[in-house]
Amino acid sequence: MHIAIIGAAGMVGRKLAEKLVADGRLGDQQITRFSLLDVIPADAPAGFTGQVDSHAADLSDPAVSKALVDARPDVIFHLAAIVSGEAEADFDKGYRINLDGTRYLFDAIRLASADGYKPRVIFTSSIATFGAPLPDRISDDFHTTPLTSYGTQKAIGELLLSDYSRRGFFDGLAIRLPTVCIRPGKPNLAASGFFSSILREPLVGKEAVLPVTDGVRHWHVSPRSAVGFLIHGATLDLDKVGPRRALSMPGVSATVGEQIEALRRVAGDAAVALIKRVPDEGIQRMVGNWAPGFNAERATALGFKAEQTFDEIIRVHIEDELGGTLSAWQ
Amino acid sequence: MHIAIIGAAGMVGRKLAEKLVADGRLGDQQITRFSLLDVIPADAPAGFTGQVDSHAADLSDPAVSKALVDARPDVIFHLAAIVSGEAEADFDKGYRINLDGTRYLFDAIRLASADGYKPRVIFTSSIATFGAPLPDRISDDFHTTPLTSYGTQKAIGELLLSDYSRRGFFDGLAIRLPTVCIRPGKPNLAASGFFSSILREPLVGKEAVLPVTDGVRHWHVSPRSAVGFLIHGATLDLDKVGPRRALSMPGVSATVGEQIEALRRVAGDAAVALIKRVPDEGIQRMVGNWAPGFNAERATALGFKAEQTFDEIIRVHIEDELGGTLSAWQ
Repeated sequence: MHIAIIGAAGMVGRKLAEKLVADGRLGDQQITRFSLLDVIPADAPAGFTGQVDSHAADLSDPAVSKALVDARPDVIFHLAAIVSGEAEADFDKGYRINLDGTRYLFDAIRLASADGYKPRVIFTSSIATFGAPLPDRISDDFHTTPLTSYGTQKAIGELLLSDYSRRGFFDGLAIRLPTVCIRPGKPNLAASGFFSSILREPLVGKEAVLPVTDGVRHWHVSPRSAVGFLIHGATLDLDKVGPRRALSMPGVSATVGEQIEALRRVAGDAAVALIKRVPDEGIQRMVGNWAPGFNAERATALGFKAEQTFDEIIRVHIEDELGGTLSAWQ
Repeated sequence: MHIAIIGAAGMVGRKLAEKLVADGRLGDQQITRFSLLDVIPADAPAGFTGQVDSHAADLSDPAVSKALVDARPDVIFHLAAIVSGEAEADFDKGYRINLDGTRYLFDAIRLASADGYKPRVIFTSSIATFGAPLPDRISDDFHTTPLTSYGTQKAIGELLLSDYSRRGFFDGLAIRLPTVCIRPGKPNLAASGFFSSILREPLVGKEAVLPVTDGVRHWHVSPRSAVGFLIHGATLDLDKVGPRRALSMPGVSATVGEQIEALRRVAGDAAVALIKRVPDEGIQRMVGNWAPGFNAERATALGFKAEQTFDEIIRVHIEDELGGTLSAWQ
């Protein structure tokens, strides 16, 4: 089986490739080849002995998608996107990559479908397709009214994917990822970064800044579960999904205060004491409009699984990123 | 005031121009100029003494939208579309006109907005943005999961319009029109044609074919009210609408049986006797997936008005198309 990952150098893309290599197979088929695409060269996944083609290019050139599709991958994970902040700051770039790029990919597959080619396409959408005012638990039939260009581009990608799937050009599924938490790596400037850093940094004895109040509620899933969603989506019987191909994923709805109490239970008061409160009205206002939670009934019934508590999300991070134990500083 | 109508040669476009000329003004501003665009040349509206520029061209050429926008119309009614059946039969044409064409228009305005240009844009969307299974009354926060490429293209147009409006490029509003009934003119091959023809033809003593069962329920509005929606949308205070710029319009939810009983009340048993039942399983299946009704709470609160009963819809047709009285045959 030949698997393509677009956005392979990103955090989720790398973890997806690692997991696929560790499994050796997708569903009941052995993985023999990877095509990796990103704007920077993605490393070949460690331990894989099959063919790996890694391309550094972006989707705004239709020839890039055509070349990828010419290699006839069986499954295409489309994770690439200009992220929310950048798509808002650079209108043209966001639409060029997130909308045009996605459409070039879908159209390259459509044109190849004339030869009977019909890959599985897993597209990472986002809870940013929803915009305030929002209920505490967003139902599966709630409308997508994004309040960012990024969310708009993702919602359009969902519509295209459902229509192209309905017409038989490919077997598509759009996975609306919750905010992925705890993101490994260094603190960054993303408005959502604090959701991870207030846990990740104290877990290794470092300070972290909290810019919002404890009452902010949001929707989270671990990187491990996010990868699990993509793999489950790639092997799922799509007849059970029907024509509505965008699914809101399960996750953990937690306030910042609940995140902090989970940290206290797992790592103690000393860890919590490392969180410095530096209120930022801009970030407070922005995240106050974000999705607080979903009921995710369809995805749950289809077998998508996430953590049940924030304690679990923290423990997954300790297992996957910290070697299974907290460091000696505690 | 300079008004542009894209799709000016269509039924709604012509009636819109006639109504605007009859009013002489839009809101409190006198109309001094029309720019009319369609794939066939639109006639200048009768009785208008100002400037009329009529262009025969389609939106798949970005230069067409640029030229229209270069004339800086104050209000742009974008009614043009490849209709449902054709967009389904010709994938490329539907996407080229309904998606790319709409985006070329929006982008031409966006680029002009750098000079401070900010027109009102009224975009006719459709209840085809919704796809079965549907509740009897679709609420304003129900998701758009179209089951046609046309509905997909309209839903994407709504998303683009909301995002471009949010970013300040123009003041947009998307009007989800119910099925317009009674459409004047001759019977056509559209799957929805019978909704009009089973009333229009008997009202002038002619036979009509009914391909579905009496229980089929659908959502209707008169051509007069459809034009009223567009004009109300063009003058409405958009601050009251907020960022969710697609509105489901009010209308009359009626079964085919209820339509027929309204015809009987208005025109008698002899008219009803002209309806010939010729069941068509394909049409039955198709329209069985269409929207049965909406609650349209937002639009109603914003002052959009439709008929209350099907009797009214028939009387509007008699007034607007038949000179106010039924012909002598009765």
